Amino acid sequence: VSAERASELRVIPVTGLPEFELGMTVGEEIAARAAVEDGDVVVVSQKVVSKAEGRVVSLADSVPGADARRLAAELGKDPALVELILAESAVVVRAVGGVLITETHHGFVCANAGVDSSNLPEEATVALLPEDPDGSARRIRAEISAVAGARVGIVVSDSFGRAWRLGQAEVAIGCAGIAPLDDWRGRTDADGRPLGATLIAVADEAAAAADLVRDKASGVPAAIVRGLGRFVTEEDGPGAAALRRPRDEDLFR
Amino acid sequence: VSAERASELRVIPVTGLPEFELGMTVGEEIAARAAVEDGDVVVVSQKVVSKAEGRVVSLADSVPGADARRLAAELGKDPALVELILAESAVVVRAVGGVLITETHHGFVCANAGVDSSNLPEEATVALLPEDPDGSARRIRAEISAVAGARVGIVVSDSFGRAWRLGQAEVAIGCAGIAPLDDWRGRTDADGRPLGATLIAVADEAAAAADLVRDKASGVPAAIVRGLGRFVTEEDGPGAAALRRPRDEDLFR
Repeated sequence: VSAERASELRVIPVTGLPEFELGMTVGEEIAARAAVEDGDVVVVSQKVVSKAEGRVVSLADSVPGADARRLAAELGKDPALVELILAESAVVVRAVGGVLITETHHGFVCANAGVDSSNLPEEATVALLPEDPDGSARRIRAEISAVAGARVGIVVSDSFGRAWRLGQAEVAIGCAGIAPLDDWRGRTDADGRPLGATLIAVADEAAAAADLVRDKASGVPAAIVRGLGRFVTEEDGPGAAALRRPRDEDLFR
Repeated sequence: VSAERASELRVIPVTGLPEFELGMTVGEEIAARAAVEDGDVVVVSQKVVSKAEGRVVSLADSVPGADARRLAAELGKDPALVELILAESAVVVRAVGGVLITETHHGFVCANAGVDSSNLPEEATVALLPEDPDGSARRIRAEISAVAGARVGIVVSDSFGRAWRLGQAEVAIGCAGIAPLDDWRGRTDADGRPLGATLIAVADEAAAAADLVRDKASGVPAAIVRGLGRFVTEEDGPGAAALRRPRDEDLFR
């Protein structure tokens, strides 16, 4: 990743995408509707990736165990939903005041293990996060490359709450072909002074930028961020796994 | 704030800005160099705002008290720096492993109370956050309005670490003329299903988008985000104060 003069960034919504269902090929659908170029970063909402991967489940098929029933009663949540959340979780981080924050099996700390009930076609279904969001990103990258011949970066994004700030912001839960972090540690600023602990979460910021062209009601689940070519890599790279803070460095459990 | 069809977003770096010093007028300098339009959101790095407001202090002028000396020894930090951090803080949230996370007097939870030593012209000086970042944003907004006649939103941004993710992402510490949160709670998705707890931190996402055109070494401290006119308001509005999670809703102290 090399430094480059500041230049303009464009965020272009990908419109006209179909409702995604199990077995649909997300990268092909995007490449068919957007003029993707080398160096683009394509940000795809987790929800459509989950749908295409069949990660949509019916609450009626979830049989809550004792832990889920107890926690659901404490939190005032649906026991079947809590069962699904626990099945997606490695550790419960906080369960208080109606809020359930867990660490997912991938290692992401977020509300409800990312299990989400909005923007789904059938009632009483919920979407789970992709089983391997970095793998999803790699596959979408290969699909776009096959159709469009372009070398792009892919970010699979989801909206996470934040410990000390209100509202959600979109972050990268998976990525491929993009350097997730821009590491300025050891480099110097314009005056030759060392830049302290400056490690920029580029993939998260790209996810956030893409969210700004999305309208939650209009169903625009993908956007192209153009102008980040300096972060697009030949290799698929470390993925969003590199953005997880290791558990032993977590000061807030 | 009304919904609007998805349309493209542009992030345009403001280049050619001078080195900022006490008394300089940030909004005028930006308006003199950028063709600002109605509906633009202008994102300005905290650092230049702090410099223009004289919030740059010399470590040599900081006399560490007993608390600062003790904490500095524990953390392996400069006692003079820790004294400045404590003076900016209402509460120490975590002090462990060389990391000092506090709640600032404004109510922001961040590392080192936002006290930062990079990108400053003189050695052994540090920049404190603006005393009233929402006030700074309101003033910059009025300055740009006076010069350019445009109704814009202003975000004063800083890079914050995150509890469970590596790297920093830019967030809004001050804003004016922009709805900081886009509240979809109670609204429905494309299929008429209620959108759960969807409250989008628009001002933070705008700050993150702006960061992507910034090069930490090249000194581009401001960017225009064009395409967010639906969030730009007549009034200055609640500011980034609305993005702080109230202390009694904080699950992670």
